[in-house]
Amino acid sequence: MSIYIQEINNYLNLNVPLFRAMNASLEKWDGNLLVMKAPLEPNINDKGTAFGGSLVTLSYLTGWAITRINILQNGENADIMVTSSVIQFLRPVHGEIIAECQQPACSEVKYLLDRYRQYGKANWNIEIIIQTNDKKTAVICNCQYVVHAIC
Amino acid sequence: MSIYIQEINNYLNLNVPLFRAMNASLEKWDGNLLVMKAPLEPNINDKGTAFGGSLVTLSYLTGWAITRINILQNGENADIMVTSSVIQFLRPVHGEIIAECQQPACSEVKYLLDRYRQYGKANWNIEIIIQTNDKKTAVICNCQYVVHAIC
Repeated sequence: MSIYIQEINNYLNLNVPLFRAMNASLEKWDGNLLVMKAPLEPNINDKGTAFGGSLVTLSYLTGWAITRINILQNGENADIMVTSSVIQFLRPVHGEIIAECQQPACSEVKYLLDRYRQYGKANWNIEIIIQTNDKKTAVICNCQYVVHAIC
Repeated sequence: MSIYIQEINNYLNLNVPLFRAMNASLEKWDGNLLVMKAPLEPNINDKGTAFGGSLVTLSYLTGWAITRINILQNGENADIMVTSSVIQFLRPVHGEIIAECQQPACSEVKYLLDRYRQYGKANWNIEIIIQTNDKKTAVICNCQYVVHAIC
């Protein structure tokens, strides 16, 4: 599992300057749960809480990372892009931002890969959750990602 | 109008580190159209186009700025937060990111202010558009903002 953590942190540090600016990192991937974190300081807003732009950006990267892992561990490579999202900000986040998502069901992974292999393009939805420090839901982000053969 | 451009750029540079990291700026406000920009380089992704996180963050700030201007020019002050958003990414952005939104109708401004003055809290919706360099719609972002008496 840890090879994916290393691979994704290296890839995002190299290719996405905003990931570096946010001081974000993929912290955990155990095959079921993926956790990405970013400290408050570079992601603070004028209210002293986590900035909405940082919350949604970390959410996007969290869903992107689990999509990339599913593609890589099935022996494929692809461009992965977010194509739409619905986000609710329910509570402020007063400290470190911790974004989580769950591994989709096997049937969803199979469906994504089958269509990708057949058409060179497929999409799926990932729900990303950010909790407050006392474990209440702060942000719910539903994202659609497209995976796409690299040109 | 230009006092608001200066005020908002100063405020965001001082209070939102991600605004600085993106090298974003409020470029235009003429009473009808508000335009915020960010160069590609600090906002690039692994495909060499504008990163989704940067596109949505600039959109959020664009809607936030027009909300702040409407509050300030009516003699009020308030915390302003995005509370939900629906975003569609329709086309990639290959260069500078230019996010625009229109001044809401007078009736909407009046309704926002009336409720804010009565209840200390009110919300409204702003649509932010990002176009490609050849003027096709790249991103549509519908955001709800709450304005809120400062504690």
